[in-house]
Order: sequence, then structure tokens, then C-alpha cells
Amino acid sequence: MRAEILSVGTELLLGDILNTNAQYISRELANLGINVYYQTVVGDNPERLKNAYNFALSRADIVITTGGLGPTKDDLTKEIAAEYFNKKLILDNKSLEEILTFFKKINREVSENNRKQAYFPEGCIILKNNNGTAPGCIIEENNKIAILLPGPPKEMVPMLNEGVIPYLKKFQDGTLISKVLRITGIGESSVDNLIGYIIDRQTNPTVAPYAKDNEVTLRLTAKANSEEDAYKLIVPVEKEIRDKLGDINVYGVENESVEEIVAKLLIENKLTIATAESCTGGLLAGKLINYPGVSSVFLEGVVTYSNIAKINRLKVKEDTLNKFGAVSSECAAEMAEGIAKAASTNIGVSTTGIAGPGGGTDEKPVGLVYAGIYINGVVKTKQLNLVGNRQKIRDRAVASTLDWLRRELIAYLNKDSN
Amino acid sequence: MRAEILSVGTELLLGDILNTNAQYISRELANLGINVYYQTVVGDNPERLKNAYNFALSRADIVITTGGLGPTKDDLTKEIAAEYFNKKLILDNKSLEEILTFFKKINREVSENNRKQAYFPEGCIILKNNNGTAPGCIIEENNKIAILLPGPPKEMVPMLNEGVIPYLKKFQDGTLISKVLRITGIGESSVDNLIGYIIDRQTNPTVAPYAKDNEVTLRLTAKANSEEDAYKLIVPVEKEIRDKLGDINVYGVENESVEEIVAKLLIENKLTIATAESCTGGLLAGKLINYPGVSSVFLEGVVTYSNIAKINRLKVKEDTLNKFGAVSSECAAEMAEGIAKAASTNIGVSTTGIAGPGGGTDEKPVGLVYAGIYINGVVKTKQLNLVGNRQKIRDRAVASTLDWLRRELIAYLNKDSN
Repeated sequence: MRAEILSVGTELLLGDILNTNAQYISRELANLGINVYYQTVVGDNPERLKNAYNFALSRADIVITTGGLGPTKDDLTKEIAAEYFNKKLILDNKSLEEILTFFKKINREVSENNRKQAYFPEGCIILKNNNGTAPGCIIEENNKIAILLPGPPKEMVPMLNEGVIPYLKKFQDGTLISKVLRITGIGESSVDNLIGYIIDRQTNPTVAPYAKDNEVTLRLTAKANSEEDAYKLIVPVEKEIRDKLGDINVYGVENESVEEIVAKLLIENKLTIATAESCTGGLLAGKLINYPGVSSVFLEGVVTYSNIAKINRLKVKEDTLNKFGAVSSECAAEMAEGIAKAASTNIGVSTTGIAGPGGGTDEKPVGLVYAGIYINGVVKTKQLNLVGNRQKIRDRAVASTLDWLRRELIAYLNKDSN
Repeated sequence: MRAEILSVGTELLLGDILNTNAQYISRELANLGINVYYQTVVGDNPERLKNAYNFALSRADIVITTGGLGPTKDDLTKEIAAEYFNKKLILDNKSLEEILTFFKKINREVSENNRKQAYFPEGCIILKNNNGTAPGCIIEENNKIAILLPGPPKEMVPMLNEGVIPYLKKFQDGTLISKVLRITGIGESSVDNLIGYIIDRQTNPTVAPYAKDNEVTLRLTAKANSEEDAYKLIVPVEKEIRDKLGDINVYGVENESVEEIVAKLLIENKLTIATAESCTGGLLAGKLINYPGVSSVFLEGVVTYSNIAKINRLKVKEDTLNKFGAVSSECAAEMAEGIAKAASTNIGVSTTGIAGPGGGTDEKPVGLVYAGIYINGVVKTKQLNLVGNRQKIRDRAVASTLDWLRRELIAYLNKDSN
């Protein structure tokens, strides 16, 4: 089945908003094994919308539109779909009731325009909108399927997940199962060197690599008659990939983040932690605290931006600062140990570096960052040489330090259990 | 002039990446007064790419492609453009030299495939790529303009800014000037209520509102024979908008951020600051430190997630914690004052709240956050009732607290100068 995504909205053509809907829908369709051949964006212009709509339905079996279901006169997707399929728009009482209830809940008057949102092409499947006033719908006719979804992602996403994906599953030929492996510590080209032969060789599961900032992901997608059989196809290929890349580099699966893995390791092993940050200025603590429940182990974080704070809070020696400077392996070590002692934690983590744009020298250029990790009496430091603007350098310093912490924690716990 | 953006890449159709290029180019073209009628995404499939390319050039005057300029056999945009315009691909020696130099710099071998990147349709304008190996190009023929840009945003954006926008300016009819006003503290519907009549009435400058998380922006775009004349058209409309919305609510212009405004106020007035965060866990400090040069005034931040850290670090009274709890106005006040005293700063800012998903009660639900601001002897607190998931609540708490700090700073400085 060939699908096309048609996003409707002048704000997209003006570049005022990012088309996150097209990405979301494309990914979900890929997971269902439905090929998206085109994504098109068109404005709220009746003629161009009509042309784009007709053209999409001429070349695809399924056309999913987002947007143009609102209450204003610019919102025309339903009208144009009805015209294409030669259907009348008729009032759906249940939808009208839900719209009235919604407005009552948010304490606003219902305008005549909002009633328009309860009219649908005759005979369609109506998709309830639990997060807004615009219901969606599905029209099936002459081997074509038109799916009309609202534009705001917070309305579109739940409607797709709850109403559309279950509907589309019936067109699936076999069952598709995907598993995402998340990799840090080795770059895209190394991944390609190490497992390129698997990517090329495999057809079931397919192996699709994707490089993002600070990590590479591999999506393994298998097709079989049952979920169980599909999983069975993934297992040996996943094992081969993990062997080739090194299991420690495959930090997680699906949507796991490094901070989640770290937080879980800390909580499970009752290891308390505190952070002392200079150049990353709170972002490291912020990442760790993303994970709910971390409060039982994350006792304290400090942002010691000034030398005086490093001395007062962390007992960094004045001598160290004078001799090696704040951006040094020595300072990172004293910061990590200092915060662990001050907060009475098992673990202390530190960062100190030059995020730029100013402050760099030949000897200590912008992007030079030292991280320190103290775990129950042992302190280590690591030098990072990062590139990018201030924001990128700080983000990369946080990502590298967190991943290094993950590796150190696993090594510490393995040693401990021997 | 009608433009169309054609993004080439199967990874876009799979939903692996967001099409940020289309947004970026659309916005820049809007700023030039060039209308984008369609955005299309097509995969690396020769036939479909050819169809999409021909179709785009049949309905638009300018077609800008991104992607398909890489070294692999899947990268076909140049070949298809050359075929469309009936041009030969010929070697450009200067581009080849630059590619060779680039590979030398990153210490990698040049493959035969990379040489392909130095071939261009005869007679085109070549756009140098300072950030990668794929140069772009512009083909002008029969009143059609085809602009070929690389796919990676870090290569595409500089090439667009340096090579394409100056080129397109010659097709501009008059000069367009845009100014963006940034608004916090009042929502989209209130903005609409207060200045909707200006938005509806205005044609030159046009006034385009856009609501993002935590702020509303208004883009004023004026057209005149000179930049100076265009600015003159903006001045009275901007004044009327500021009067209606309240000048304090218009926190900045263009790309200014609230943290930038706050950091500048602190630096200019030599006011030192320290932060004490609970639920926002370092994100407030992280935002402030986004602004380079803030190190002269940002002396220290602490993340006091546990009660014991609040007591030890900030001298929050045990009695306060027992009587009112950590999430209370009283605790926020003691935290703000405590960090200012501990770090010997003029200003102390604190947050304490329930970011969820757990930890909420009927009395203190998820989303309840207290912020505290201490400025030279005076401490104030503010209750925030926020909605969203954990991440959103924390982001919104940071945004609200920073904006409140901006307002308090301005009030303090105004009082001081009287």
C-alpha cells in the first residue's frame, strides 16, 4: 500500500511551525510496513488544496491529511474530501454533543462556526477528539482511503494512536515488530564499518541506522505471521550486532535515555550521587532529575561557576586553581571528590571547561572540558575535546559525562559483584 | 514569484528525521516576500524524484531542493536537474580542489564517489560548501530557477544564508523588513483580544502572531523602497502594540531570550546572583548560563533536592519543613534568602515544587511550584500552578521564574533610579 501525507496549513509554508506531524505519521506508517512515497504541504488556499488533494489520491492508496478541520472559513479539508468522494456533509449529533461538552468544560461559548465541526462526509468513520474540538474521520471508497486528522500535534497524535493505527492494522500483511538499539561511544562511520555487512545482508529483519547528536540508533524491523515469530527473527541479529559493536556501547533499547539508565542503576544499587558543575551550569543535574524517583539518590547539585564557589563549596585547593587553572584535570578531580564529601554521597560528578565563545586560548581552546567521577573513594578524570557553539559544547559535555558515568557505574558494579 | 521546496531523502519519508530544512527555507523566503506554495518530500527513488522534480518546476518559478548531493549512487538530484534542463555535467576543478582539501583536513581518504561531487550542470552558479563535501548550485534557464542545496542542516543553512539569499534579493520587488516582538505573561487569546484589530487592519506592515510554549511572538513585516522607509512604517505600529499589550510584557525583540535579557540586566547593573533549585533541578542555572559572560555575576547555583541539603546548604529551618513542607511559599523564601547569603550575592532565586508524575496530593497537586526571589534584603515568593508532564512542568517553572525575575529586576532598578 502506498501512502501520502498531506499537511494543510499556511503557517507551515511560512515556516512559522515545524511539520512534526509528517514525521510522526511517517514513522508510525513505517512501523506498520506501509510505504510513504510523498509528503506534501499546502496552504489554506481552496484551489491549491483541492489540486494537491486530488493529486495525492491519484498516486496513493491512502492519503492522510493533517489540519484544515478547525472552525474557521479557512478550514476546508472536510469540504474538499467530501467533494472528491462525491458525498454530502451531514450533522453527527454525537460529535455535536461532545463539542458542546468540551466548551462547557473550558467555560467558553460555542460559536456557530464550531457547529461546523460536527458535520462529516456521509458514511465515514468518525474519529473522536479527546483533546480539542475537531473530530477526524476516515473515508473508504473505490479502493482509496482518506484519513482526515486535526493539525495540532497534541490532538493529532492521540487520534492517530487510538483511532487510525488500529484501523490500519487490518491492512497489514503479516505482523511487523521493530526494536531500536541505542548506541553511544562509537560514531556512525565506525558503526558502519563494524556492522555494515549486517545492514547490507539483512532483509528480515531490516536494519536501519540513524545518527543523531551524541548517539547512533539502529532500528531492527522483522515481519512474520505473529509477534512472537517476528521477535524470534530479531534475537540472533541483535546478538550479532551487540557482539560486533561491544555490548557496553549499546546503552539501551527503544526510547531509553542514558540518564534513565544511570538513574535506574543508582536507584537499584542504592548509590547516592551529587554533582558539581562549572561549564555545564546545571544541565547535568537537570538531565539526571529528568528521571522520576531519582530524588531518593540524587542528594545535591551545585553550580560552582566562580573560583570562590569552587573553594568554599567544594574545598578545591587555591593552589590547584593557581597552578593548573579551573579548567584542568586536577580541578575536576577535586570538584568531584569535594561534592561527594560535602553532600555525603557515594558518587560525585564534576565538569569544568570552556564552552565559549570567549575564554579560549591556544593551550586551552574553546571546547576543552574536563569531567571527574568519584565513586566510593576512587576518583577519575577525563578530558573531552568538543566542537560546536556554546550550547552544543555544553550539551555534548553533559552527554559524554553521563555516558562515561554509565560505563564507570557498570564497571564498579561488576567489580563489586565479583 | 512562486517557490516550491522539494526535500529529497528516504529518511524523511521513514520519519527518521524532522524536516527542519523546509521550515528554515520557508521562513527565509517569507522574509524575502517570496511565496512558497508547496513543500514536497520525496525519497531517493530515481523515478519518483524525477516526477516530483518535473512537477515542481511546472508549477513554480523557483524550486529549492535539499538533499541528494552526496557521494553515493542514491544521490541523484544533480543528475535529474541536469536532465531537466538538458545540460551536461562537467567537472569543476576548483570544487574538486576544495573537496580534496576538506578530506585532508579531516584526515580521510577521498573515494572516487567523492569526485562525483565536483561535477555540475554546465553553466550553473556553484555554491561553495564550507561545512561539508557537497557544493550546491543554482541553474537559471527559461525563467525557471533551480537551487540545489545539501541535506544536512549544518551545511544547508550557511549555504542558504551566504549564497542563496543574496542571490534571491535581486528578484525582490521593494525591500522587506521584519521585526519580531516577543511577549510573555499574556496568552495568545488575550493578545488577540487586545490587538486583534491591529492584526486585521494592518497590511503594511503585516502583523503575524505565533504562539509558542511560554510566549507569543508577533512578526511585523513592512515593504518599502528602502530599509529606512520600511522601518519607518514599523515604528508607529510597534508603539501601538506595546501600548496595548503593556511594555513590560514585550520582553524582547528578534531572537532575544528572557535569560539573555535577565543576564544583561544583571551584568550592566553589577548585580550578583545565585540559584537554589529543587524541582527544576539545575535547569534554571543552566538557562542563565546560556548567556556568555554571565560568569561575572552568576556566582553559584545549588540543586537541593533533599530536605537535608536544603537545611545544610541553605539554612532552611527544620521547623519550616515540618510545618509547611518543602513545597511551600515559606520554604521557597528561605531557600532564596539562604542561597543569597551563602553565596554572598545580591540576588537569590529559588524553586520548589512537584514536577510529577508521582508525589502529588489533593492539597499539593502535581504542577504546584513555588518560586522565591531575594533582592538585597527583600524576599518575595510566587505560587505557580502548571500543567503538563514532568519535563513540561519543569520547563514552564523555569520560564515563569525567569520572566518573574526579569520583572522584579526592572521594578527594582526603576525604584533604585528614582
